[in-house]
Amino acid sequence: MKLNIALLPGDGIGPEVVDQAVKVCDAVAKKFNHEINWTKALTGASAIDACGEPYPDSTHEVCMAADAVLFGAIGDPKYDNDPKATVRPEQGLLKMRQKLGLFANVRPTFTFPSLIDNSPLKRERIEGTDLIILRELTGGIYFGERGRKDDGNTAFDTCTYTREEIQRLAKLGFELAMTRGKKLCCVDKANVLESSRLWRETVQAMEKDYPEVTVSYEFVDAVAMRLVQWPNSYDVMITENLFGDILTDEASVISGSMGLMPSASKGVHTSLYEPIHGSYPQAAGKDIANPLATVLSAAMMFEDAFGLKEEAEAIREVVNKSLAAGIVTEDLAGSNKAYKTSEVGNWLAENI
Amino acid sequence: MKLNIALLPGDGIGPEVVDQAVKVCDAVAKKFNHEINWTKALTGASAIDACGEPYPDSTHEVCMAADAVLFGAIGDPKYDNDPKATVRPEQGLLKMRQKLGLFANVRPTFTFPSLIDNSPLKRERIEGTDLIILRELTGGIYFGERGRKDDGNTAFDTCTYTREEIQRLAKLGFELAMTRGKKLCCVDKANVLESSRLWRETVQAMEKDYPEVTVSYEFVDAVAMRLVQWPNSYDVMITENLFGDILTDEASVISGSMGLMPSASKGVHTSLYEPIHGSYPQAAGKDIANPLATVLSAAMMFEDAFGLKEEAEAIREVVNKSLAAGIVTEDLAGSNKAYKTSEVGNWLAENI
Ligand SMILES: CC(C)[C@H](C(=O)O)[C@@H](O)C(=O)O
Ligand SMILES: CC(C)[C@H](C(=O)O)[C@@H](O)C(=O)O
Repeated sequence: MKLNIALLPGDGIGPEVVDQAVKVCDAVAKKFNHEINWTKALTGASAIDACGEPYPDSTHEVCMAADAVLFGAIGDPKYDNDPKATVRPEQGLLKMRQKLGLFANVRPTFTFPSLIDNSPLKRERIEGTDLIILRELTGGIYFGERGRKDDGNTAFDTCTYTREEIQRLAKLGFELAMTRGKKLCCVDKANVLESSRLWRETVQAMEKDYPEVTVSYEFVDAVAMRLVQWPNSYDVMITENLFGDILTDEASVISGSMGLMPSASKGVHTSLYEPIHGSYPQAAGKDIANPLATVLSAAMMFEDAFGLKEEAEAIREVVNKSLAAGIVTEDLAGSNKAYKTSEVGNWLAENI
Repeated sequence: MKLNIALLPGDGIGPEVVDQAVKVCDAVAKKFNHEINWTKALTGASAIDACGEPYPDSTHEVCMAADAVLFGAIGDPKYDNDPKATVRPEQGLLKMRQKLGLFANVRPTFTFPSLIDNSPLKRERIEGTDLIILRELTGGIYFGERGRKDDGNTAFDTCTYTREEIQRLAKLGFELAMTRGKKLCCVDKANVLESSRLWRETVQAMEKDYPEVTVSYEFVDAVAMRLVQWPNSYDVMITENLFGDILTDEASVISGSMGLMPSASKGVHTSLYEPIHGSYPQAAGKDIANPLATVLSAAMMFEDAFGLKEEAEAIREVVNKSLAAGIVTEDLAGSNKAYKTSEVGNWLAENI
């Protein structure tokens, strides 16, 4: 198979971790007789530095022409704490999501038995946790009208959702639940927000099409509690953009393997795969960042974007092997030898 | 001193736990020579049942005439999962907050050494946790314009903040930080929301008036993670209404003493004190609910609303004594004898 992949390394540790994923993908392609055609493009602060735009048109064209996008991370401290900065790396992310129509962010949270004791939570609370949060990614308060009034002394943001936007996301949620534990939790704030009431009403109307799926409706504040108390009680969760932003991050620290969690964003025009961690500017250029989340995102890409299950499994297997063999970066090494980012990448590519 | 207190038991276990707080307050009043004048009024589902309104005008008058309000909990399952219900108990809560001008919800999270092992988090993560979240309570998306368009197929909610609303809340935050660890964290989503940028800009402009306070600005998604990872790194946090709703609930499960956490809501016209737990309809009428959060809310009331520190300390001391003596309800009893709600209340009143 010929695989056209857009490669967006981004900022900070992005380029380093993406490099390792490329090595692993190339090794898998060789083993399974595929041909990968990588096309690199700029995003985030590095794109602003190069051409004043965090998601340049040229990058968009590369993504549109590709079968899938592999993404690192973006963000640079020089843009933080400046509420008046007019161009921000994050704008690139939002523009990219919107222009590529990436409406569903798929965020799994699962545990690696060997890493469970890294979690801030007690072992018995997290054992067996295997949940997926589907976050709506191109609607809500992220993309509504916003602005100032009264000489800048009043600010407003608008959260808007249409029934179609909700249906499209919920459909993915129901279908995903059917392939797993058949439980779907719709997270909203229907006791206060009109947009949440539309979410609840729309999902309720879809229940009859998936009679095998057990659906629950929970308020976002209650979920923020239960995720810490009983993460292993959830299967698939669906929610709107802002709630999803908060809950996916909360969920990510639960497993103790935050540096290993992959994600996918499914879209109208293409789909994008990225580690959930950020650009960690403090670690950039030091060859110490953990590349596994990006490598596992590449596994999701093989499976979801190309339907190549065996290839995805091969990647997951070699990752597990590296963990068992202690070929890990300093964040996971404890008192044992810590390997460099590039050493881990090489080992994975050689052992695939 | 003469203390006029409005008593709003509410729904579910509200009346039972409030009864115990009344016993304790009366015992404290007797000991310190105060006279408490309690005036009871209806709220929530019980008010809807009685007069079709979750926060009737008559209740509002009682609150306005009082020096402080002691509140139980509201909510009834018969109003849940019905997105089209036109009168909901929660509307009473929102109306009450707005009409009483309760703009600042004060939510402490602290640990009881004897209960620390009840936490889902590991002991070393939570030891020393002592944080307060100040949640703005009468603005933001809770009170903005909302509605439907396109034949009901589009729903919207508006989040609005004015500089004055932010200043008023932030001022409390700075002042509180000055009496404690001198650290203030402003939680927002300034990389996306215009209202958050106004928050950040307004708080930044106030920094110079409190040179001793170290201020940090963190995104709500990052805070949702760090609260689980390093809760003891926070001192005072300030945030807008919806973020506060989610984060205060998340914080509440961290200490392992959720059933014991009190809260205050400071207002323009009066202030209100309530346990953070809900109305637990499943436990209502069984005399098994833990009354300590309400009793500790009464302690906050003595200290904050009346400036009666010694009285507040007396309440906190007798609560600690009851925990040490194992005079506790079933949620804390483990394999030891569980006392009834009313027995715990009697013991506290007798031992004050
Ligand atoms: C950087 C920011 C705009 C972004 C978001 O809030 O969506 C990030 O937090 C994320 O979750 O990908
Ligand atoms: C019941 C609901 C409207 C309320 C809120 O969201 O403010 C509750 O969750 C709370 O935090 O007091």
